[in-house]
Amino acid sequence: MENKKQDTASALKDIISHAKEYGFVFPSSEIYDGLQAVYDYGQNGVELKNNLKTVWWKAMTMLNDNVVGIDAAIFMHPLTWKASGHVDSFNDPMIDNKDSKKRYRADTLLEDRAAQYDAEGNETKGKALLQQMAKCLDAGDLEGVRQIIIDENITCPVSGTANWTEVRQFNLMFSTQVGAVSEDASLIYLRPETAQGIFVNFLNVQKTGRMKVPFGIAQIGKAFRNEIVARNFIFRMREFEQMEMQFFVRPGSEMEWYATWKNTRMKFHQAIGLPAAKLKFHDHEKLAHYANAAVDIEFEFPFGFKEIEGIHSRTDFDLKAHQELSKKKQQYFDPEINESYIPYVVETSVGADRLFLATLCNAYTEETVGEGENQKQRVFLNLHPAIAPVKVAVLPLVKKDGLAEKGQEIYNSLKHAFNTTYDESGAIGKRYTRQDLIGTPYCVVVDYQTMEDQTVTVRDRNSMEQERISIADLKEKLGHAVSMERIFEKLV
Amino acid sequence: MENKKQDTASALKDIISHAKEYGFVFPSSEIYDGLQAVYDYGQNGVELKNNLKTVWWKAMTMLNDNVVGIDAAIFMHPLTWKASGHVDSFNDPMIDNKDSKKRYRADTLLEDRAAQYDAEGNETKGKALLQQMAKCLDAGDLEGVRQIIIDENITCPVSGTANWTEVRQFNLMFSTQVGAVSEDASLIYLRPETAQGIFVNFLNVQKTGRMKVPFGIAQIGKAFRNEIVARNFIFRMREFEQMEMQFFVRPGSEMEWYATWKNTRMKFHQAIGLPAAKLKFHDHEKLAHYANAAVDIEFEFPFGFKEIEGIHSRTDFDLKAHQELSKKKQQYFDPEINESYIPYVVETSVGADRLFLATLCNAYTEETVGEGENQKQRVFLNLHPAIAPVKVAVLPLVKKDGLAEKGQEIYNSLKHAFNTTYDESGAIGKRYTRQDLIGTPYCVVVDYQTMEDQTVTVRDRNSMEQERISIADLKEKLGHAVSMERIFEKLV
Repeated sequence: MENKKQDTASALKDIISHAKEYGFVFPSSEIYDGLQAVYDYGQNGVELKNNLKTVWWKAMTMLNDNVVGIDAAIFMHPLTWKASGHVDSFNDPMIDNKDSKKRYRADTLLEDRAAQYDAEGNETKGKALLQQMAKCLDAGDLEGVRQIIIDENITCPVSGTANWTEVRQFNLMFSTQVGAVSEDASLIYLRPETAQGIFVNFLNVQKTGRMKVPFGIAQIGKAFRNEIVARNFIFRMREFEQMEMQFFVRPGSEMEWYATWKNTRMKFHQAIGLPAAKLKFHDHEKLAHYANAAVDIEFEFPFGFKEIEGIHSRTDFDLKAHQELSKKKQQYFDPEINESYIPYVVETSVGADRLFLATLCNAYTEETVGEGENQKQRVFLNLHPAIAPVKVAVLPLVKKDGLAEKGQEIYNSLKHAFNTTYDESGAIGKRYTRQDLIGTPYCVVVDYQTMEDQTVTVRDRNSMEQERISIADLKEKLGHAVSMERIFEKLV
Repeated sequence: MENKKQDTASALKDIISHAKEYGFVFPSSEIYDGLQAVYDYGQNGVELKNNLKTVWWKAMTMLNDNVVGIDAAIFMHPLTWKASGHVDSFNDPMIDNKDSKKRYRADTLLEDRAAQYDAEGNETKGKALLQQMAKCLDAGDLEGVRQIIIDENITCPVSGTANWTEVRQFNLMFSTQVGAVSEDASLIYLRPETAQGIFVNFLNVQKTGRMKVPFGIAQIGKAFRNEIVARNFIFRMREFEQMEMQFFVRPGSEMEWYATWKNTRMKFHQAIGLPAAKLKFHDHEKLAHYANAAVDIEFEFPFGFKEIEGIHSRTDFDLKAHQELSKKKQQYFDPEINESYIPYVVETSVGADRLFLATLCNAYTEETVGEGENQKQRVFLNLHPAIAPVKVAVLPLVKKDGLAEKGQEIYNSLKHAFNTTYDESGAIGKRYTRQDLIGTPYCVVVDYQTMEDQTVTVRDRNSMEQERISIADLKEKLGHAVSMERIFEKLV
């Protein structure tokens, strides 16, 4: 066996077309030529994504007695986003070309120019340019950013002119009007992150769940950002899903918990099958205004190491801001030290779609099998059995002589326990290939021996080796092999 | 034992406060005084809701080899809603009072008046009024609707006057702007139903999944409607979740499948624990423009029999409309009859939040237990074990003498398999009560005998009876009792 090497652009292209062709990811509203930066999950994609969400959810809430979940709505009171800072500063700097009427992200124009300098070997110049821009942006000096664009003589790719407007801030939140009474209608936002749904419910959960600090609240849900530059398939979308856990701790203990969760989360990604060599920590050089420590877990995508999860020590920034704006105390009375305080927060935040893409990229395997004349290429998805969309395919070798009926009987005996499929159409090799392409870990084959001794062969997706197993043992053995408990064992 | 009777208003009030107090449902953004008609699910609510979603999902996709799932985005191409008819006719008729500037649903004003006639014993008059209104609405005669309001001398409850504007149609879809380039920005909608995400993906799924008609596509997801009158807690919300399955059939066979799915879906609700006596079919008297048969499954809420699921024979209305607008053929070639056609569709559509509310209302039980001086009231949630948020609570009788450590050991041995909690704080009776209130079916008690013979008692939530079981058997016995397979067995 030998894995084929590929260049990075074609590697991502292969993933995208595999995802489309085998029912993992479709472009949204494709019959209307799609909606930019929005995607739908197909019949295999939804199972894979649900499995990733479930294993994360259970690892959080079942394995930790001090972590519970919630499911807050996408719609929230607009003051939530005032308190969090999103109304005032969740912006991108934009500039319009007066001739083409096209709008661009000012920072992207300058980043592209810096990349051009780099490509020309003039890296010092590129770096200086980025530093100059960062300085202006930090100071809120938008006129300064515009001046750099003018000085660099950057032109609009459409009109070819440098006839630019001023630079303005553009808020990334989607908004809509709620309520029927037009005069009273209020502007609300689609949440740009799920975290705030946890913060505004902190006391509700703490009190009704009798939670004692330290404890965590986990949540999975959609968030929305009006991204200007959407890139890399499902890596950056306008509608996306987050899996977040906010862990509330005693002030002063946050660095300890930050270290603990860094470690726990890295273990998780490895336990679901991402190799250690493709994962790394990336410390934030510049911290967000609410954080006193922040790190990303990055996965090596075909387009480089990129963030799949962020772990942030958010201090008491959010709870404090909500307390100030709502005038509702967000304090916890700690019986151990007989003191009330606003807890500090350590956040772990995974992009569910990014984890899906990482899993798919990692699983996608091309290999050469067989020898001499029998040599051929095969593609399979090397997914952890507990994560794979379909766990078991039941395949009668032929339809006749009662083999199909026996196959149906076995299929019916397994389908209540885990996701099983039945396929009797085409040559057995073709049917194996179909299952390999969607990552099914086990194929159960009903053959003539089955009719005599009530055994079947179980083919392993990765090794392609077959083992004879009694039908009576199938449910327990396969159930054990595909259980998420296999993942949880690696997490303790 | 004797169940306490209650009047309906207080029954719903009890459910709402129980839901709040024990972490099932919180008002959204409560610290900012809430957001009307939006709710958040708390730590127990999210588990209950997830279990309902999972059991529905598995019953659809695992039990039926010809039903697969998808997860389409909330954002869709706006032409989707043109084709479906939502842009043009997903409206409510509204009227403003010129003095108070308040806006009302014109049909609600008339319905309230009809209800008033009913209450006065004048049901003929009430019925006639509703018929007159329906006739106007069907004909698009909004001036006629206004005239009835005038004739009935209906006044604004705020201003007390009958100084009304004309009646206008108000679209219930939420809209937002996508894209940064303001001139190019396009208006998109938050989907008002999940069904269209299935229809636009019909051919993608059929082809990549090699599906043969008849087959179904299932989906769970959020939908949004700018409801004017939001009522009855989580029964009608502006943000809600649907569980829909669209079943594609050969034209002419739709009535057969409609009957089959009616039966299957009714069985489902009973299998998860809703009693047959509280469920009924309600045939639609008037069919929607896309349907040739439609029925609701209604549950008896404290506020009466109301829809929790709709089953509709939607004909080829949707696929045909998409074919016309997109110019993309939405046909299936049926190899059995050697013919191409646009399939007919039988839809089953459950409101996930309504099913949650039905489950909660049904489970909420007040009873008198004990005799004489020991007589007391208890409240518990009679939830199906596979649906209950927490499956097992491990409770050491006392903390000392190694019982707490033994309890922790048992907790750790079970928590990978199902949702288990550990509680050592307070008297054992209090701890039972805590679990009763959230519907935990089993309490495992570690006592002094445990230390001698490695057995524990398992207390049943409903009967309150205790059974001694060996620790070695706990995981398998309890795992069996709380498994969703107990529900699936009833569905075959």
